[in-house]
Amino acid sequence: MKPFGKVVVCGVGLIGGSFALALRQAGMAQRLVGVGRRPASLERARVLGVIDEACDDWATALAGAELVLLAMPVGQMAAVMAAMAPHLEPGTVVTDAGSTKRDVIEAAYSHLDARLTHVVPAHPIAGAESSGVDAAFPALYSGKKVVVTPLPENDEGAVQRVCDAWEACGAVIHRMSPREHDRVFAAVSHLPHLLAFGLVHDLAGRANAEQLFSYAASGFRDFTRIAGSHPEMWRDICIANRQALLGELDQYLAELAYLRALLLAGDGTRLEHLFDEARRARNAWAEQQTNPVSE
Amino acid sequence: MKPFGKVVVCGVGLIGGSFALALRQAGMAQRLVGVGRRPASLERARVLGVIDEACDDWATALAGAELVLLAMPVGQMAAVMAAMAPHLEPGTVVTDAGSTKRDVIEAAYSHLDARLTHVVPAHPIAGAESSGVDAAFPALYSGKKVVVTPLPENDEGAVQRVCDAWEACGAVIHRMSPREHDRVFAAVSHLPHLLAFGLVHDLAGRANAEQLFSYAASGFRDFTRIAGSHPEMWRDICIANRQALLGELDQYLAELAYLRALLLAGDGTRLEHLFDEARRARNAWAEQQTNPVSE
Repeated sequence: MKPFGKVVVCGVGLIGGSFALALRQAGMAQRLVGVGRRPASLERARVLGVIDEACDDWATALAGAELVLLAMPVGQMAAVMAAMAPHLEPGTVVTDAGSTKRDVIEAAYSHLDARLTHVVPAHPIAGAESSGVDAAFPALYSGKKVVVTPLPENDEGAVQRVCDAWEACGAVIHRMSPREHDRVFAAVSHLPHLLAFGLVHDLAGRANAEQLFSYAASGFRDFTRIAGSHPEMWRDICIANRQALLGELDQYLAELAYLRALLLAGDGTRLEHLFDEARRARNAWAEQQTNPVSE
Repeated sequence: MKPFGKVVVCGVGLIGGSFALALRQAGMAQRLVGVGRRPASLERARVLGVIDEACDDWATALAGAELVLLAMPVGQMAAVMAAMAPHLEPGTVVTDAGSTKRDVIEAAYSHLDARLTHVVPAHPIAGAESSGVDAAFPALYSGKKVVVTPLPENDEGAVQRVCDAWEACGAVIHRMSPREHDRVFAAVSHLPHLLAFGLVHDLAGRANAEQLFSYAASGFRDFTRIAGSHPEMWRDICIANRQALLGELDQYLAELAYLRALLLAGDGTRLEHLFDEARRARNAWAEQQTNPVSE
């Protein structure tokens, strides 16, 4: 794999920072430039050695850039693309790390229309409980999946460069259509986050919240771990993917209505059967996860 | 604390087996006798040194017993109490490890009416992902809560002996009313289990289940860990506590209806606010959990 010259990371947090660290460790980036909303965070990223340079204007950042990773919450993608567009050079490959794909692609069609051959959407299936550049580490993507959802307009060489970059980070590439991507992740990621946020919010609002939390144990801890996730990031994901997410939520509400009916009827036989099927499916999945991916 | 003479454990699995191991390690049991449905499991418990003797009749098991722990799924409590009743001696203290309390107490009023001074209901808030006697270990209860829900009929000396036993296992005693117990655990334990079983069951039934599971990551893994729990045990808990559980489920369904309305309206501001409140509450709780209890 040919190393990249200048690599620009917009949003140098856990995701963007770990990408920068991994590329550097693999010897795949000659110069790493950070762009972002908060000058203090960028300066922190520079001090930590995650980036070589913090940049506050797109003209300078994009001059001679070979690769750009957009790693902000997806709600900012359109505005960032609009700001970048006048300064983007023809050969620069642009990719993103957004958790949703159809909305990011809509933003690209709106704002990067002249550069679609080189705009390759992707989603690394990795993450951690903590956010921010201090949480970044180079092995974050090691053995993890990166879903690439190329556009019909894409130049195959540009797609290959994006795959090169992620493979240099240790990731495994999967290709999917944007629609399929958004439906799959609505089910296995966005819905569980919504459900966990909802349960904690529900209990925290009770008059006896303090008592309730004092008896919560490890089952509760694991079930609600994802309710500690970044609110702005998850607001953006839920809004961006709300069509698929509403479909998943409604299907889940039908499941809960069935469970409610079994409880009302005191139907232990069907309840046990359902629990048993769930346990078998969950255990079969867990056994296959020799190296479980994080998100 | 005065050691117990003969201690009988009915249901020598993770919970009952760990109790036996912990009492023995603390020098608090002179003789440990196991009773249970499956002779092979009891024999395994004997071979592992968890019990001294496996016993298949209640007359022999209860002769001269000082303490009995009932550690089967709560759905078996009534039948076991009925079988024990004719052989129970006046001085024997009976306690249980059931995850629900009102139904166990109902069973005691029905079948152990003549011995209520010495029947002290309790619930250790501890457990592990695996079940069965092979998973038992003496430190399971170390630093964990045990909720004792004494009956108005209880002899205070009998209550103290039950507290002695659990404290010898390293647990911290909390007293609550049975009704309060069942409502608190419906919210922080029974409902999350129902929700996790439901999500996995829902996804496992899809035509593209294999694809969905292949992209499930660590958030999904933690959220669904409790869907790997024992189906019979959780059937019994859900049925026994269905009144409180239905109340919690309905409150949660109202929360989901609100979330659904925010999604439909695309109301990112309120969604982020809700996520932020949930995250704060969850993180505040997690920070207090210096030594998180298991269940």
